Amino acid sequence: MVSNQCIQLGQAIGRIRPFNEKMASLADRHSDRLTKPPGSLGKLERMARQLAGATGEMWPDLSRKAVIVMAADHGVCAEGVSAFPQEVTGQMVVNFLKGGAAVNVLARQAGADVYCVDVGMKDDVREEGLIRRNVKRGTDNIAAGPAMDREEAIAAVMAGVALVDELAQQGYRLFATGEMGIGNTTASAAVVSVLTGLPPETTVGRGTGIDDAGRVRKVEVVERAIAVNRPDPTDAFDVLAKVGGLEIAGLAGVIIGAAANGCPVVLDGYISSAAALIAKQVTEMTLPFMFASHLSQEQGHAKLLEALGLSPLLHLDMRLGEGTGAVLCFSLIDASLRLMQEMATFESAGVSRK
Amino acid sequence: MVSNQCIQLGQAIGRIRPFNEKMASLADRHSDRLTKPPGSLGKLERMARQLAGATGEMWPDLSRKAVIVMAADHGVCAEGVSAFPQEVTGQMVVNFLKGGAAVNVLARQAGADVYCVDVGMKDDVREEGLIRRNVKRGTDNIAAGPAMDREEAIAAVMAGVALVDELAQQGYRLFATGEMGIGNTTASAAVVSVLTGLPPETTVGRGTGIDDAGRVRKVEVVERAIAVNRPDPTDAFDVLAKVGGLEIAGLAGVIIGAAANGCPVVLDGYISSAAALIAKQVTEMTLPFMFASHLSQEQGHAKLLEALGLSPLLHLDMRLGEGTGAVLCFSLIDASLRLMQEMATFESAGVSRK
Repeated sequence: MVSNQCIQLGQAIGRIRPFNEKMASLADRHSDRLTKPPGSLGKLERMARQLAGATGEMWPDLSRKAVIVMAADHGVCAEGVSAFPQEVTGQMVVNFLKGGAAVNVLARQAGADVYCVDVGMKDDVREEGLIRRNVKRGTDNIAAGPAMDREEAIAAVMAGVALVDELAQQGYRLFATGEMGIGNTTASAAVVSVLTGLPPETTVGRGTGIDDAGRVRKVEVVERAIAVNRPDPTDAFDVLAKVGGLEIAGLAGVIIGAAANGCPVVLDGYISSAAALIAKQVTEMTLPFMFASHLSQEQGHAKLLEALGLSPLLHLDMRLGEGTGAVLCFSLIDASLRLMQEMATFESAGVSRK
Repeated sequence: MVSNQCIQLGQAIGRIRPFNEKMASLADRHSDRLTKPPGSLGKLERMARQLAGATGEMWPDLSRKAVIVMAADHGVCAEGVSAFPQEVTGQMVVNFLKGGAAVNVLARQAGADVYCVDVGMKDDVREEGLIRRNVKRGTDNIAAGPAMDREEAIAAVMAGVALVDELAQQGYRLFATGEMGIGNTTASAAVVSVLTGLPPETTVGRGTGIDDAGRVRKVEVVERAIAVNRPDPTDAFDVLAKVGGLEIAGLAGVIIGAAANGCPVVLDGYISSAAALIAKQVTEMTLPFMFASHLSQEQGHAKLLEALGLSPLLHLDMRLGEGTGAVLCFSLIDASLRLMQEMATFESAGVSRK
């Protein structure tokens, strides 16, 4: 079973095509013919370039969009690291399925569909619409030992890969990463500290809104989790298994799956970016498919994006997760492609150049 | 004639209603009931608050949106301050009217209408759809003397006010400021230096893309314009007339007009923000109606927004003008209002609080 999943993961990685430099150059050349000073559309031009290189199409049709919300629970909640009780994970999942959460509202506006996945929730929620891929009923407390087995980490990653495979087959071409999991900024901070070498003092933030004393405790918990588990920073699955979370693993899988299907994927905030760091560690070939969305208010997110080599588009002081920041960027990706396709050229409009 | 326009402007200012603190508090209270950690939607929540306070309605209907592109020419082009020849102003205006410019593409995506105004172009463009409100056929060279008469500055401001009055009567409730005018970052830098006290070395940027030597010349030109004209920083119309531009004046009028009609107005980049500084100088009552959109790559824009007390939402390294950054923010304003109206509350969704 485990070896089968490893083989499947290897196959998915093997399907990732390298960045198409030729198509990216063609996109650049077209961009320079449009009626604007060269480079004046900034990141929207660079986005068009990256989309062309990643998908291998000059103007990919990204009209079908999906937000994948991975939900899981965290044993580390026992350490009092969150401002909200653990039962909120399941309650919010029901809210997602009923369409009442922020991500649902923003997805409706963007013309995107929300898929909510139980990849590691404690409660066995059986609400209609929930995609049930539970690998483990919540992680164990990382401050006392490993979050999960290595097998479970790989299974959670593969759940993400397999779901994107299914959705891509249905015609979805653009993905956003979202998550729900009380306690998941703690696990994410541990993952980020291990993979970047940044101290927990830098990577631990206030999550859903803990106070100063709570943050001091959270830093200490992350320090303990790393000291107790000693994860190997060169082995992404060891890091995931020892100090990660099931939704972080699932989202790393979504990113790998998107890359395997030649689809761009927009990262949300801190937890999604931690998953992206895992995906990058698994294979750097995932990088050209990643797009940063917003700069989260969660401390350490700027440094985390820096480690990924990504620059955020939105500065909205958000710290909600769910995929909300990522979905807000769908309209910017659409804008980038529309500009390339609909703008007049200097020649067609009879406008003088420099 | 002049005194009539002053009276009309005074009347417009008199129509501006103060910020409705009660409505803003109601918006805040509602926001805190929604299924998210308090404050976690960041600027989207603060935007909903500001929209409620500015319009006096909890959830204003802002579905009808207009981008007003003010076009004008600048005598200072004779000093070689721009990377593009002056005839591009008129050529780009034709491009706007034919729907081929970046702002047209983005407006179509946002469901907004583009209104292009000749408020001070050198060429008498007679293309269909152009709103002809020409006050003067381009400014005079500010490096040698005043840009225009005080009467002309006031007339250009009133052209903006009157157009917004008309459009508001037609049902438009949300405006964006845009402009076209080769040479207008030079005039804007002069306006910003006079009103903020920042030296031209800080306020002068590369505009549409001049090189280092060009920028040194541009700084010197702005220094000369201020030295020659000695504008009175406490008198917005003196600043506009001596070192401003007709589109800057027109946009200051658009902002005052929006405020007079109780409508929010989204500022674009550097030139629009310079116009906003003028509007603020005319009356601080315009401030609650202003929304910053993006941080332009034009040097000095961050400091200019700081002087306005505004924080940009988008960091896209754009430097195109036309209203492009402002139009991109329309979907964020829609998002803010939709979230407030469509999200479930803790009570309705049965989600536990902190």
